[in-house]
Amino acid sequence: MSKRRVLTGITTTGTPHLGNYVGAIKPAIAESQNPDVQSYYFLADLHALIKAQDPQRVQQSRLEIAATWLALGLDTDNAIFYRQSDIHEIPELAWLLSCVCAKGLMNRSHAYKAAVAENEEGGVPDPDRGVTMGLFGYPVLMAADILMFNAHKVPVGRDQIQHIEMARDMAGRFNHIYKGDYFTLPEAIVDEKVEVLRGLDGRKMSKSYDNTIPLFVSAKKLQKLVRKIKTNSLEPGEPKDPETCTLFQIYSAFATAEESADMRRRYAEGIGWGKAKNEVFEYLDAQLREPRERYEALINDPGHIEQVLQRGAERARAEANVLMERLRVAVGLGRFR
Amino acid sequence: MSKRRVLTGITTTGTPHLGNYVGAIKPAIAESQNPDVQSYYFLADLHALIKAQDPQRVQQSRLEIAATWLALGLDTDNAIFYRQSDIHEIPELAWLLSCVCAKGLMNRSHAYKAAVAENEEGGVPDPDRGVTMGLFGYPVLMAADILMFNAHKVPVGRDQIQHIEMARDMAGRFNHIYKGDYFTLPEAIVDEKVEVLRGLDGRKMSKSYDNTIPLFVSAKKLQKLVRKIKTNSLEPGEPKDPETCTLFQIYSAFATAEESADMRRRYAEGIGWGKAKNEVFEYLDAQLREPRERYEALINDPGHIEQVLQRGAERARAEANVLMERLRVAVGLGRFR
Repeated sequence: MSKRRVLTGITTTGTPHLGNYVGAIKPAIAESQNPDVQSYYFLADLHALIKAQDPQRVQQSRLEIAATWLALGLDTDNAIFYRQSDIHEIPELAWLLSCVCAKGLMNRSHAYKAAVAENEEGGVPDPDRGVTMGLFGYPVLMAADILMFNAHKVPVGRDQIQHIEMARDMAGRFNHIYKGDYFTLPEAIVDEKVEVLRGLDGRKMSKSYDNTIPLFVSAKKLQKLVRKIKTNSLEPGEPKDPETCTLFQIYSAFATAEESADMRRRYAEGIGWGKAKNEVFEYLDAQLREPRERYEALINDPGHIEQVLQRGAERARAEANVLMERLRVAVGLGRFR
Repeated sequence: MSKRRVLTGITTTGTPHLGNYVGAIKPAIAESQNPDVQSYYFLADLHALIKAQDPQRVQQSRLEIAATWLALGLDTDNAIFYRQSDIHEIPELAWLLSCVCAKGLMNRSHAYKAAVAENEEGGVPDPDRGVTMGLFGYPVLMAADILMFNAHKVPVGRDQIQHIEMARDMAGRFNHIYKGDYFTLPEAIVDEKVEVLRGLDGRKMSKSYDNTIPLFVSAKKLQKLVRKIKTNSLEPGEPKDPETCTLFQIYSAFATAEESADMRRRYAEGIGWGKAKNEVFEYLDAQLREPRERYEALINDPGHIEQVLQRGAERARAEANVLMERLRVAVGLGRFR
């Protein structure tokens, strides 16, 4: 139990794209292979219900994301990989935490405040219009995700630091009220260097901008998408600036330092956009071919993915159970003996 | 499955008293023996955590309440008797419901509004002071309690009608969004004739007034408490009014119609308070002696109560599981096949 515990949740509402891969999946998979760390990766599918009330989309996204992580080499012997919805102890813990969590804390949640601000800007008389209890209270569920496994570190983006602070608040209150060291106070790790990949139109690659290149599409589709990446109107022979170029950024996110330096030189020499796009496509395709084949095999064998996730759930629940037994006794819900 | 399903929750923060018995326990136990009804009785111990952060109190109250209901003859073969906290599916369902429950609905909850009003009256600048997410969101958990077993009828006091309306709202929204008949819309049964027993001081018998006569205390203690019931200063020989008399009300809640009529006559004849109190004590003691003995035996055998509740939990979970499997698939959280 002396290993550092790191926990990462993956929201299951979309299809993984190159931006997810570069910014989150690749570094996380590298970490999963670190024997000094006990990593927990979970499909945050209970959270997905806040945003997605389309069952096909949620189900498909869960499957795609699980297949993606496995295809890319997630070490499921070392790391514990599970679906949040398989850990029935998590909503139970969320209830215990909600009884020590001030409503005022949730009033200050960024996501809730953003929803209220949108209503106010739109002249909607009810500031809570469209806000469900799921949206309002999800930081409590998120605290349960984290505290259930007594995670030391939670890698997050800037916008998520607040969630970790809230989890710390609930953990501290519970420990205080019930007079014990039940929960570890988690710490956010904010990686300032996380690369934000740009999408087809040059803005941040994101499902909400509809500008993504999915990670696993056919070679043909990949080629078509790479050709759609927005470039400028410079002709072949004219020197081009790699710094402001989305195509170059995507390439260099995958290429080695040497390969990137080489491409940079060829930009200076005036490589034509058509040629550059073909080369980037060929390069990406070569890199993605093998994992794509594994992905295709996995996605066509959902029963196998289910097995892997069930094994992860068993490992996670074995830990969750021990903690929950302690917590039940702590709050007065222990068995009669 | 054509039996009418009736569900009753029992909050586990106190010790059952004569008022609970007359107003709730006695009619509920009679109903538990009705073969045409599938009754569900549960110790609402997750709800108890909202009010009670004292683990000993919660644990003791759970034990006392379970022993009380069993001692009084709850038919646990016909009725399903369980602890809420043993049904891990309930908080899970609460999460699904929270994703279809408007926050605005909770803003209008009586309990929340009462807490806000108290803050405002007390000049507290933060209207949400002292309000936890448990207090704010418990109608969602209560909806899960009810909808989990597709209860048709929920016997409630006037102050609880709102909870049933909220549960209906969530059930209807879920059925609509996920296009199916997942939930029965529950109906409140308000028994206007529920007898509100008065306590030692003549106000409603209630833990919060500290005026209760616990149901199972020693004969000596019972005698002492009956002697403390507030009466007026009329002397023996003076005619007394049974209608306004707490002692008479308590007696007649236990006595037969004939016995009550007889006592009424003796009030008119001027029975002395000392004598009347002795008779009421003797009568109550005779009625309570046998269940009290069973209660004592039960409370000294918590392992047996645990067994009874585990059996109830198994029966309840067998039903809960079937529904939850359906709901998981409905929202997109089914297994991969």
